[in-house]
Amino acid sequence: MTESAYPPISDQLADLESAQEEGRRKMDWAAQHMPILEHVREEFVAEQPFAGERIAMAMHVEAKTAILVETLAEGGAEVAITGCNPLSTHDDVSAALDTHENITSYAKRGVDGEAYYDAIEAVIAHEPTITVDDGMDLVAAIHEDYPELIDGIIGGAEETTTGVHRLRAMDADGALEYPVFAVNDTPMKRLFDNVHGTGESSLASIAMTTNLSWASKNVVVSGFGYCGKGVAKKAAGQNANVIVTEVEPRRALEAHMEGYDVMPMAEAAEIGDVFLTTTGNRDVIVEEHFEKMQDGVLLANAGHFDIEIDLDALDDLAVDRYEARDGVDAYELEDGRRLNVVAEGRLVNLAAPVSLGHPVEVMDQSFGVQAACVRELVENGDAYGAGVHDVPDELDKEIAEIKLEAEGVAFDSLTDTQRDYMDSWDHGT
Amino acid sequence: MTESAYPPISDQLADLESAQEEGRRKMDWAAQHMPILEHVREEFVAEQPFAGERIAMAMHVEAKTAILVETLAEGGAEVAITGCNPLSTHDDVSAALDTHENITSYAKRGVDGEAYYDAIEAVIAHEPTITVDDGMDLVAAIHEDYPELIDGIIGGAEETTTGVHRLRAMDADGALEYPVFAVNDTPMKRLFDNVHGTGESSLASIAMTTNLSWASKNVVVSGFGYCGKGVAKKAAGQNANVIVTEVEPRRALEAHMEGYDVMPMAEAAEIGDVFLTTTGNRDVIVEEHFEKMQDGVLLANAGHFDIEIDLDALDDLAVDRYEARDGVDAYELEDGRRLNVVAEGRLVNLAAPVSLGHPVEVMDQSFGVQAACVRELVENGDAYGAGVHDVPDELDKEIAEIKLEAEGVAFDSLTDTQRDYMDSWDHGT
Amino acid sequence: MTESAYPPISDQLADLESAQEEGRRKMDWAAQHMPILEHVREEFVAEQPFAGERIAMAMHVEAKTAILVETLAEGGAEVAITGCNPLSTHDDVSAALDTHENITSYAKRGVDGEAYYDAIEAVIAHEPTITVDDGMDLVAAIHEDYPELIDGIIGGAEETTTGVHRLRAMDADGALEYPVFAVNDTPMKRLFDNVHGTGESSLASIAMTTNLSWASKNVVVSGFGYCGKGVAKKAAGQNANVIVTEVEPRRALEAHMEGYDVMPMAEAAEIGDVFLTTTGNRDVIVEEHFEKMQDGVLLANAGHFDIEIDLDALDDLAVDRYEARDGVDAYELEDGRRLNVVAEGRLVNLAAPVSLGHPVEVMDQSFGVQAACVRELVENGDAYGAGVHDVPDELDKEIAEIKLEAEGVAFDSLTDTQRDYMDSWDHGT
Amino acid sequence: MTESAYPPISDQLADLESAQEEGRRKMDWAAQHMPILEHVREEFVAEQPFAGERIAMAMHVEAKTAILVETLAEGGAEVAITGCNPLSTHDDVSAALDTHENITSYAKRGVDGEAYYDAIEAVIAHEPTITVDDGMDLVAAIHEDYPELIDGIIGGAEETTTGVHRLRAMDADGALEYPVFAVNDTPMKRLFDNVHGTGESSLASIAMTTNLSWASKNVVVSGFGYCGKGVAKKAAGQNANVIVTEVEPRRALEAHMEGYDVMPMAEAAEIGDVFLTTTGNRDVIVEEHFEKMQDGVLLANAGHFDIEIDLDALDDLAVDRYEARDGVDAYELEDGRRLNVVAEGRLVNLAAPVSLGHPVEVMDQSFGVQAACVRELVENGDAYGAGVHDVPDELDKEIAEIKLEAEGVAFDSLTDTQRDYMDSWDHGT
Repeated sequence: MTESAYPPISDQLADLESAQEEGRRKMDWAAQHMPILEHVREEFVAEQPFAGERIAMAMHVEAKTAILVETLAEGGAEVAITGCNPLSTHDDVSAALDTHENITSYAKRGVDGEAYYDAIEAVIAHEPTITVDDGMDLVAAIHEDYPELIDGIIGGAEETTTGVHRLRAMDADGALEYPVFAVNDTPMKRLFDNVHGTGESSLASIAMTTNLSWASKNVVVSGFGYCGKGVAKKAAGQNANVIVTEVEPRRALEAHMEGYDVMPMAEAAEIGDVFLTTTGNRDVIVEEHFEKMQDGVLLANAGHFDIEIDLDALDDLAVDRYEARDGVDAYELEDGRRLNVVAEGRLVNLAAPVSLGHPVEVMDQSFGVQAACVRELVENGDAYGAGVHDVPDELDKEIAEIKLEAEGVAFDSLTDTQRDYMDSWDHGT
Repeated sequence: MTESAYPPISDQLADLESAQEEGRRKMDWAAQHMPILEHVREEFVAEQPFAGERIAMAMHVEAKTAILVETLAEGGAEVAITGCNPLSTHDDVSAALDTHENITSYAKRGVDGEAYYDAIEAVIAHEPTITVDDGMDLVAAIHEDYPELIDGIIGGAEETTTGVHRLRAMDADGALEYPVFAVNDTPMKRLFDNVHGTGESSLASIAMTTNLSWASKNVVVSGFGYCGKGVAKKAAGQNANVIVTEVEPRRALEAHMEGYDVMPMAEAAEIGDVFLTTTGNRDVIVEEHFEKMQDGVLLANAGHFDIEIDLDALDDLAVDRYEARDGVDAYELEDGRRLNVVAEGRLVNLAAPVSLGHPVEVMDQSFGVQAACVRELVENGDAYGAGVHDVPDELDKEIAEIKLEAEGVAFDSLTDTQRDYMDSWDHGT
Repeated sequence: MTESAYPPISDQLADLESAQEEGRRKMDWAAQHMPILEHVREEFVAEQPFAGERIAMAMHVEAKTAILVETLAEGGAEVAITGCNPLSTHDDVSAALDTHENITSYAKRGVDGEAYYDAIEAVIAHEPTITVDDGMDLVAAIHEDYPELIDGIIGGAEETTTGVHRLRAMDADGALEYPVFAVNDTPMKRLFDNVHGTGESSLASIAMTTNLSWASKNVVVSGFGYCGKGVAKKAAGQNANVIVTEVEPRRALEAHMEGYDVMPMAEAAEIGDVFLTTTGNRDVIVEEHFEKMQDGVLLANAGHFDIEIDLDALDDLAVDRYEARDGVDAYELEDGRRLNVVAEGRLVNLAAPVSLGHPVEVMDQSFGVQAACVRELVENGDAYGAGVHDVPDELDKEIAEIKLEAEGVAFDSLTDTQRDYMDSWDHGT
Repeated sequence: MTESAYPPISDQLADLESAQEEGRRKMDWAAQHMPILEHVREEFVAEQPFAGERIAMAMHVEAKTAILVETLAEGGAEVAITGCNPLSTHDDVSAALDTHENITSYAKRGVDGEAYYDAIEAVIAHEPTITVDDGMDLVAAIHEDYPELIDGIIGGAEETTTGVHRLRAMDADGALEYPVFAVNDTPMKRLFDNVHGTGESSLASIAMTTNLSWASKNVVVSGFGYCGKGVAKKAAGQNANVIVTEVEPRRALEAHMEGYDVMPMAEAAEIGDVFLTTTGNRDVIVEEHFEKMQDGVLLANAGHFDIEIDLDALDDLAVDRYEARDGVDAYELEDGRRLNVVAEGRLVNLAAPVSLGHPVEVMDQSFGVQAACVRELVENGDAYGAGVHDVPDELDKEIAEIKLEAEGVAFDSLTDTQRDYMDSWDHGT
């Protein structure tokens, strides 16, 4: 294998030193609020679990991810990293990473398609023993173009839903040749990311985009899964009057029992002030609903894709459309009503101009699981066959323990007597 | 088979008419607040699904249960019922039931052991095609003493955890010869019964037993399962300062993320004002904790068994013990501190003198599932082999729909497009 | 003045010793949860502020009041007490009080009118220097029949709204000849008694009377003053869906801004499940509302008088009326709907059969103010002329400090710099 | 009086048309969410209360204020306006206003001191009959330089605390020669602005500045007045664990009774994650507190002035200080701990880079009161003597009514019987 000629970021930047400094500053901010990775890093530094390993990464190279990268490097790994999206890289963070003796960073913002793939190849040229992906770029490139490396690879980890989805398809076709952990869907992630992360950051993004307040607003939350529960709870916590729409009767009943108003969207459309979709499904708010809405309503989406609000239909209905504010498109209807779409109906806690992506603490948890998965691969990789694997329950639990310890929260453990009692009960008489 | 000579309640009561009237009054109260059974009853009256069936029941014969009994009878069944505990029968309700042309009630309060079993035999003598148990008395008696009836039995339903536990053991031994639904553990039940039912009624029982208020109290909730979450949420909703103890790190973290204080019992013991155990485990509060508690604390249990607070140890520590109030035992320690145990550490929302058992709405849901299970047996009994069966998800869902409809709450349903989208997503690309 | 021949309780009871023991037990319970009086008592014991004083009291003689009585006696006062209502006296508590060397208790339950007034005269015969009333019986009797004692009286304290009302009328006529503190309406009392006390105990009383739960119920709260706010907040904290009715626009808006539904009673009547009046006004729920209500609703009142729900009109509408449960009257209308009135529309946290009166902690605060007022009379009585006086702000504040200290809650105090800053701001440039 | 030569904004801007369009767009957004002003405007349009009046205004000329200006102009007034701060003017909004035939706007961003005062003189040159100030610039200039106009002035309104403060000083010296309403301190304003406005916007500003979440954070709120209550309630509503510090015992107790932790700052300093001051006093967080804080804490202020956190002392303690993020200064201490000050300790919901000032709805209420005050001056100006006047209670109430009506919220009104009952109660027996 020929070493790639694609240069690391340090060879590409003009004012390198100031970039490194600025990147380090951003990383310092994140690191202060990532107690799980801090704890994990201390362990890794002491135990050097990755000594001799080469980790290839393709992820969003910004401050939060950078702390994960450093954490792995401090654990003894030689890390090569590039971006997973040409627009999400922060050059300064990339440069700061590249100063670490164990890290080579090829990520650069705004590169063209060719350079993007050159950088991926440059990462692969390090002959990784482990891959960490955010969208399966590395897994795909290795399987297609560098199959000779597969024998040397212990396994990988994949961060995103979509990546996991594609990996499962690959797995189903028998084409996935090493084990990959599906980091996305652990219980801990749902709790942090969906309930608290999505809940809080969606509402704050909308408030800071619109200059409006929540108190007394009729907030229509579509979907009462984890995200919907989070949004509903946090909106009620800001003194909104929450209305829930659902298609699953037990979730509808759960919302009703919490004291929320539950009704069909056709009814909610008439009284809602703000609409927030969290269903993961398409066409949740459609033409018949737009027709009933009040002047001045806000429409936003906290689900993954921008398909929950039927903007095509809204566009057809509208006689005018203009940017009412930075991050808000007003659709004016024939009768003069204005329906205001926030962040183009895309994931509002990421896509609104003022949004900062997931809160630091959320990524700390998610990356904590990543780090634990990488360690699991090194220590017990043999136990996992080629294919997609759920994160072992024990790892998820361990991250919870680390978070609690890092925050100084102690809790009880079962005594032997209690353990015996539970066992006897579980196993029957 | 010889018809039993044991007489129904109507032949046993002196002032029958006034008893019937009083029983009917109690049932009327319950019926007003059981919209699910009301809905189900209307369906049953119209469709007569149980025409020709004979249902044997052994349950707590009080007003709420009586509405289930009537509901089944109105659906065409011939019902014979007796109590499942000699002390839980309300004679007036029993008498009121017995006036129904399709119902024979043998339940009588305070009968001795012989009469108790005579009544069970009297019920069995009706040669049931279906059994409904609360503690598996009927299933046991039939399997032991009347095996010849088993061929004619479509199946049964069991209400309690303990009954289900014993049935599973029987099943494991290959001794259970017809299908029985485990009504106890459906998702709907956890939500209603545990979160809302246990949460609200435990706190109200304690408040009305002690004449104390919740605002500003340090309320220590042990266990953050469904019951614990309910108790914590409702206590916080009364302005208590909630402290959670847990042994499972993810639940501990979940509680911490909700904003509750999480700490080991050894620490909580020093600052708690009220302690409420909901773990289902034993020895949650023990000697080392009693030693640290403040004067005047309340100790109560909302878990099934009275083993969560180690009262033997407390008794050993105490220099005096007396009834401080109706439903409260004060244990006075050597240094003068008084630790107050509510309802003898037994399930506080049932065992406190002022308690009324589960709220009517909770039993409506639980009995709604019972009724649906009985219908399922009649309609699709062949589909279930001998053994313990979980309640089919669809039935549970149907009860949620009925509750929503009965309360006038409408909700959305998936469009074809949405269903297609979900399917395509679930099944991959 | 001839000494009264009316005997103290100890001379009236048959089984005196066991009564004393039982009374002491009840008092012990209360005392454990009255940290303010405990603190005050310690001060009084050390400082003996009432040495040489004779305090006459006419109050509800039950456990909570008894702790106040003891507290005053421990402070050196000679206390004579009788009941303020023939039905509210607990003989055992009265007997327990009477064992104290500084206390003579004449209170006996169920005495006839003559004995009731004989007991008041017996108390007055002790030639009080201070009076403590709950309904101004003592003030009235002294002014009418023993004017010669007035010169020796430093002042008095009155607990109730009604008493204060009558005293103000007397004052307006120039007929009140010594200073009396209006203990009823201090800021602290509103917070404790109205928001938390009334809020929690009203809901618990209704739940334990009806066996119903709050989750998902439409709870209509009439009036959004302190009581209404408390009821609304606590009901929402039990996952009820709270609806507020008001006549004052700013309170209506305040409720709306909290996220509650606000609407006229005529609209709320159609959707409410439970109605709770807290307005202090009459005819809040009347015929036109009854006509629209759903079958099975609960009607209750948390306001002082039983005039908020127009029961006469309901009675006229009803074709039948019967006791649906202990504490619940069902009014059956022509069309079969049943409207259920809890505790006869009287103050529900006192009048429901299961109710225990105000929570102990609430009375601790109220009696703490009483004790402080009595001390104020002894120490600065000269500063107050004949007439009704508000409780000085400083005393109210002091009770807050004592409560905080007693509960181990520390707080900050202003530094000199801060005090200067506040002063400069207040007094202008 | 010579007409000022200072030109209106339309004569100063290059690309006037596009500025007008952009300004109109911003105003449209605000107008959509200002139902009170919309309602008031409709009344004013129909009734023309200000026909013949000339209103001089000096205010922040941005979208929200512009709606007030238009509202007054639509009521028949001839309005002349300029800015009250050279940096707060939006030129596009100013230009859009200036297109109105009844409005002349002189406000231009970034003008120097001379132009600033020339603009004020230009406004005054319109010979106002009413003045509307935000910082008393107009009142001061008129009293000092144009006393001959005072006879023709009916009265004025002043928006800010500081302005009112200075006016009261002027009034105390007998120097204020016409009536001015103190719009700042109405009950409605406290509720909207302080509890909901400050509460929500402070938390959202911090979240969007720091990329952090609230769940499980120890949030220390200093001061439990209206602002503190708002911040505490909204933070708890985001699942923070709220800690309150106070100096007034009754407020401390109120916070304790709500279930919050109450402690001195010296204790809170050790465990807080985020500190938010709302006291209105100075030196709330000082050196001794900084010394105890954890690494990574956030320090922010929601009180009017930047004196609550002693930044000088923090600067002295720090060995390094750098901008950790846009809007966050990190102070690094000798032992490596970093204390992060948000928005330089200035009013965080205004001063953080991402902040948008008060929510639109809050200004709607505040400007609604302004509009009502101006009308009151026109209709009943004779009733008010020279000096500072509180806003009449009735006006404040009327604004609440308008808000409720505008939002479609109906409420009850007293019947004659109820009014009689209240009167009889108030006026005694």
